[in-house]
Amino acid sequence: MEIAALAEQILKGDRRSLARAITLVESQRADHQAMAAELLDRVSGAGRQAVRIGLSGTPGVGKSTFIEAFGCMLTGQGLRVAVLAVDPSSARTGGSILGDKTRMERLSREPNAFIRPSPAQSHLGGVARRTREAVALCEAAGFDVVLIETVGVGQSETMVSMMSDLFVLLLAPAGGDELQGVKRGIMEIADLVLVNKADGALKPAAQRTRADYAGALRLMRRRPQDPEDFPKALCVSALEADGLETVWGEMRGLLEWRRARSVFAQTRAEQARHWFAEEVRQALLARLETPGARARMAALGAEVAAGHLAPLAAARDMLDALDAPDAGENGPAGPA
Amino acid sequence: MEIAALAEQILKGDRRSLARAITLVESQRADHQAMAAELLDRVSGAGRQAVRIGLSGTPGVGKSTFIEAFGCMLTGQGLRVAVLAVDPSSARTGGSILGDKTRMERLSREPNAFIRPSPAQSHLGGVARRTREAVALCEAAGFDVVLIETVGVGQSETMVSMMSDLFVLLLAPAGGDELQGVKRGIMEIADLVLVNKADGALKPAAQRTRADYAGALRLMRRRPQDPEDFPKALCVSALEADGLETVWGEMRGLLEWRRARSVFAQTRAEQARHWFAEEVRQALLARLETPGARARMAALGAEVAAGHLAPLAAARDMLDALDAPDAGENGPAGPA
Repeated sequence: MEIAALAEQILKGDRRSLARAITLVESQRADHQAMAAELLDRVSGAGRQAVRIGLSGTPGVGKSTFIEAFGCMLTGQGLRVAVLAVDPSSARTGGSILGDKTRMERLSREPNAFIRPSPAQSHLGGVARRTREAVALCEAAGFDVVLIETVGVGQSETMVSMMSDLFVLLLAPAGGDELQGVKRGIMEIADLVLVNKADGALKPAAQRTRADYAGALRLMRRRPQDPEDFPKALCVSALEADGLETVWGEMRGLLEWRRARSVFAQTRAEQARHWFAEEVRQALLARLETPGARARMAALGAEVAAGHLAPLAAARDMLDALDAPDAGENGPAGPA
Repeated sequence: MEIAALAEQILKGDRRSLARAITLVESQRADHQAMAAELLDRVSGAGRQAVRIGLSGTPGVGKSTFIEAFGCMLTGQGLRVAVLAVDPSSARTGGSILGDKTRMERLSREPNAFIRPSPAQSHLGGVARRTREAVALCEAAGFDVVLIETVGVGQSETMVSMMSDLFVLLLAPAGGDELQGVKRGIMEIADLVLVNKADGALKPAAQRTRADYAGALRLMRRRPQDPEDFPKALCVSALEADGLETVWGEMRGLLEWRRARSVFAQTRAEQARHWFAEEVRQALLARLETPGARARMAALGAEVAAGHLAPLAAARDMLDALDAPDAGENGPAGPA
């Protein structure tokens, strides 16, 4: 694959090239990762920015229907929309079908839309890195809005919020009791709480749920840099495409406010700093994942389990082995 | 300090020497850590084992009262009891007084008891290591039972359960609703759920709470290696010292069962293996905590935040710097 040509196609907004580039970024192969790094270097110079929206909601709240309706509303306004999915459960369950094109048939046919299902990944650190790189590629490809979708399990929300400009929690109408079901941590990162299915017989329940959440949000500590009425709870109907323009208006208003106060740029700067530090930590821990290191960890672990070696002494052995000149059997070798 | 003499005193069961040794283990100073490692090497040869009991419960359930009553019951049987406290909140709050001697006045006067309050620590990884080492010292000092106390915040429970032979969750009587307040993860690691304050006017409520938890425990996946009626929910009154011998009997019964099936030894082997791997990971990440590495992380982080450097490129710089011969400004230097 010619990286220069691929970069050029991405900068032109070619969706097929974008898809190939994301596949490259997702690959575990060392040569692919080197190519991905070169590609990211090449396209990042363009300095393009999309509005990055993190979106969370448990299964059943109508996430796909919402993304399809919201995405089509945006493309209808001439905006280009990319949808990325993060599914931390996919490693265990074999993958639920988040971001599946068949569930967003109308949006997937839009020439201004790009939908990418969740890759199967082994650990959240890897998912984070690949998703960040996919976001960067979507921005380089000139998308105006990048929706990063995830499911309600806590850790993945925090991760997605650290790469988003704003974060949306999607809910279904429910009895007041269920308010407790939403983790406090997720409420704390949400800029907008949207109660979906505010249509037909469910409309009154949706309005009550919205009021419950509006009350709960008022009790939480406000972010001092945001307008007084944020975070905000709103009703929408993805099915009837009702309230979606209001949502988009609220999003733009919030981002405008933040841009005017440099909060937008500060947040992105903080996020970049966070990912730099995380990248360093993950790279250090990745030294334990070469075939040689894994084999040695297993052998020492067996010695420890058998009681022949204390955990601390075994750890010292392992660290010495990692630092030995021939340690990186799959990495750069040789003493300085 | 003479490490050989200190080790000798610990093996004789001297409490004052034990206290000094734990202080050594808790110290962040490099020379103290080297002495602590030598000390642990010296005493571990004795091969003594205590029953390690992890104990969790939110503030207000009567944890100190329970430990005092339970501990005195054990010392009354001629057993030697050590109490260690893990308080992951102490770094933030300046330390709550878990394991404080003034709250366990009677137990602290027992010649066969040793009580150690929670040290203020910066991160859970450090707390884990120091607590494990304190447990090892208590075992070397010939204690029969080591109680490791923590508060109900999830991560610290998991950590304590990974260094315990059995795990106890202490609760107060409550309405049925509050069952949801206990994190599922904590229920899953508990071998015994004890509803305290089963005395006076609260007795009926305690019995209802016990029944609620017994029902909840039955719905959870049983550990195939344990007796059919475990995990078990029981009522106790720490205030009236009621039910404590039953609890101890259940504990011994469970441990006997596990010993007879080699589950006890297997679990300890798995724990040792876990701590070996954790030790390696923590040691790798600790390379970012030398003054030189911190300064470089801060400088590169500022470049990233300012947009002068991409997170990935900065991470590569940092990793190269860590691997350079003069990287470890506080560690071993020089090329191979």
